[in-house]
Amino acid sequence: EEDGDEPPPEDTLRILLATDLHVGYAESDHVRGHDSFSALEEILQTARQEKVDFLLLGGDLFHENKPSRNTMYRVMELFRKYCLGDDPIPFEIVSDENVNFGAASKHFNCANFEDPNFNIALPVFSIHGNHDDPSRESGQQDLSAMDILEVTNLINYFGRHSNVEELDIYPILLQKGITKFALYGMGSMRDQRLYNLFSRKKVHFHRPAEATEDWFNMLAVHQNRENRGRGQKNALPESVLPDFMDLVLWGHEHECLIDPVWSTSDKYQIIQPGSSVRTSLSEGEAKDKNIALLSVYKTSFKVNPIPLKCVRPFRLTDITLGEEPHLDKDDPNVTENVRELLSNKVDQIIEEVNSHVEALPEHLTPPNNMRLPLIRVRVEHTGFTPLNNQRFGSQFVSRVANPADILLWHKRRSSAASNKA
Amino acid sequence: EEDGDEPPPEDTLRILLATDLHVGYAESDHVRGHDSFSALEEILQTARQEKVDFLLLGGDLFHENKPSRNTMYRVMELFRKYCLGDDPIPFEIVSDENVNFGAASKHFNCANFEDPNFNIALPVFSIHGNHDDPSRESGQQDLSAMDILEVTNLINYFGRHSNVEELDIYPILLQKGITKFALYGMGSMRDQRLYNLFSRKKVHFHRPAEATEDWFNMLAVHQNRENRGRGQKNALPESVLPDFMDLVLWGHEHECLIDPVWSTSDKYQIIQPGSSVRTSLSEGEAKDKNIALLSVYKTSFKVNPIPLKCVRPFRLTDITLGEEPHLDKDDPNVTENVRELLSNKVDQIIEEVNSHVEALPEHLTPPNNMRLPLIRVRVEHTGFTPLNNQRFGSQFVSRVANPADILLWHKRRSSAASNKA
Ligand SMILES: [Mn+2]
Ligand SMILES: [Mn+2]
Ligand SMILES: [Mn+2]
Ligand SMILES: [Mn+2]
Repeated sequence: EEDGDEPPPEDTLRILLATDLHVGYAESDHVRGHDSFSALEEILQTARQEKVDFLLLGGDLFHENKPSRNTMYRVMELFRKYCLGDDPIPFEIVSDENVNFGAASKHFNCANFEDPNFNIALPVFSIHGNHDDPSRESGQQDLSAMDILEVTNLINYFGRHSNVEELDIYPILLQKGITKFALYGMGSMRDQRLYNLFSRKKVHFHRPAEATEDWFNMLAVHQNRENRGRGQKNALPESVLPDFMDLVLWGHEHECLIDPVWSTSDKYQIIQPGSSVRTSLSEGEAKDKNIALLSVYKTSFKVNPIPLKCVRPFRLTDITLGEEPHLDKDDPNVTENVRELLSNKVDQIIEEVNSHVEALPEHLTPPNNMRLPLIRVRVEHTGFTPLNNQRFGSQFVSRVANPADILLWHKRRSSAASNKA
Repeated sequence: EEDGDEPPPEDTLRILLATDLHVGYAESDHVRGHDSFSALEEILQTARQEKVDFLLLGGDLFHENKPSRNTMYRVMELFRKYCLGDDPIPFEIVSDENVNFGAASKHFNCANFEDPNFNIALPVFSIHGNHDDPSRESGQQDLSAMDILEVTNLINYFGRHSNVEELDIYPILLQKGITKFALYGMGSMRDQRLYNLFSRKKVHFHRPAEATEDWFNMLAVHQNRENRGRGQKNALPESVLPDFMDLVLWGHEHECLIDPVWSTSDKYQIIQPGSSVRTSLSEGEAKDKNIALLSVYKTSFKVNPIPLKCVRPFRLTDITLGEEPHLDKDDPNVTENVRELLSNKVDQIIEEVNSHVEALPEHLTPPNNMRLPLIRVRVEHTGFTPLNNQRFGSQFVSRVANPADILLWHKRRSSAASNKA
């Protein structure tokens, strides 16, 4: 947005990218229960403020396959609040929408903004993740929580598999001015099954017949990503995705890697926004969280990261008791000493994180009800007895969001085991 | 509709009345699973065909408090299909909609047809029943399946109780031309609790301050009705409802009593459409099912019953084995003789009901997938051994909708017991 070389707005698709919102996560936790809803609201709000053409989600919108009534209600309320309105939709769909959206309903098979009975201001397109994939009740059709949002016309759910023996993936073809955008979607399935389908050449990406090379090609997937210590068959290898792809929105991985990187095949780029709520107290979740504003003009694109502020602060620290100079295994008060050491450590982290949050610029400051930090101290305790987590945490109840599981106890691995990892 | 005395249409509210749809009832039954959905569709279709001003439901729209995903999906699909469209809404609401509808959402507190982002052609107003009443998940707000339909703008849910210690019931005030219509709603609550509230004068019906006497007053309730052998405290006595009421839509009772009758207090009339799906094989459910077209002009009303055709045929018969001339308790083949007698009886009923259905005029003929009849034979078997129901039913699997529970076995009551009943 710096100079006169900006592509013309009427030809530029502006898309907000986010994934793994896990709405409903920890909803009955009286401290963190609202976090996932706040992040959803921030994302929807950002989409409206930025006047994007649409919001694209990479799956795991819901944390639970069968969301609670409260979660479903709040999600519907937020989508209705932010997705409806008079703003015009400045792009059009030129593919067969029956093919793109027609999987579940006999009656409603077009994009939500094309139904003349609804004023949609912000279209949302989403695939499903493994948390919100379709499941079958006895004798009934496969349906997911995403279908419930789709039948009420709140979202456009795509990338559903009508046949799990052979995948025919037809893109949603969008046009805005002279920009042609082909959006492919592949809802989550078991990695092993998907890998087998690729091995048996049963996955077909159908490109548009006309002006094939003029399209910008984007794919939304929700699978494990390779090279993360899982072994190839438990991930979707980047090399099996088609070379013609330009950009892949990778869902399921919760670590925020917002800057696009080249695939291992060097053929397309990958953007991995990560989850918008911290669903585990691990390294991947410890980073700052971002969503991304994607601009596409003809076949080139640009990504602008947008930091999320509705994310609870989180600090992850390691400590090895055996390396602490003032701890003596043979001291009869050793347990008390460990407790004091760890309490001081947690006090110190709380102080650091609070100072950090106070120093944040306003647009990055989490709301008041999201300031109590998550703290995780991984304690290597070979030779020492672990403390009771619940008891240890009680002193931090009003200062830490997760008092009962601050400490994670583990022992030194043998060298054989660490080689394996 | 017979002569020139008809009131002017622009001043006449036309309202379709139905109740106890119990959608999702027996949904996993491979014969009857779709019955409740078909009846819902027929009711919505009738409302559109008759171009009523709105549809009023008396509770128990859903059979289960937590409807299955399939039920929720199908209900939403049908409401979206029939309630949206361009037809104008020829009446207006003049009461404070925040009071009428504002119980659950902070954001959406007006009637669904007043939200400018939706084209509503058929407004639906509904109270909740005991099957779909609000329930609380841990730490969350009370919500019902009706709230889910309301937040997606598919229905107008009213008669919710925000305070269960004291009921303040404010009517939805509707105006169509010169007709003023006050719609009171009282969602289901335990009969004992409601009775106590009335006894303690804690139920307040708030009448409009202006032109108080000019309003037609209607109340939707969903409670047990008195004088049905339950004892007064387990029902809502008709006498406690306010004398100014004109008409009460009584939900919860599944027997169809479509012609309005005067209340025991002789102050207002009661219409009881009954359930649209047969949820039990009892006398009350055995009658023909009707919904009603209510016309209100100023303070007078007229009711036209409309028979439902999407209702499965049902025959209920009694037989007393001891009174059968050809049955001999002491015959060594008595069990075989009982079986033969009852089989012949059921054969005969099947034949009768099939002939009856075939002779129906087309507009009353159930669709093909609803013709297999429900049959219940209550067998008074004092002195005889009951047969195995499952085994008996196996011969009727393709001819009866409920083969496994055709027979209901009971013994003669003592005269003391029958006096009590
Ligand atoms: Mn996830
Ligand atoms: Mn996932
Ligand atoms: Mn009921
Ligand atoms: Mn009922």
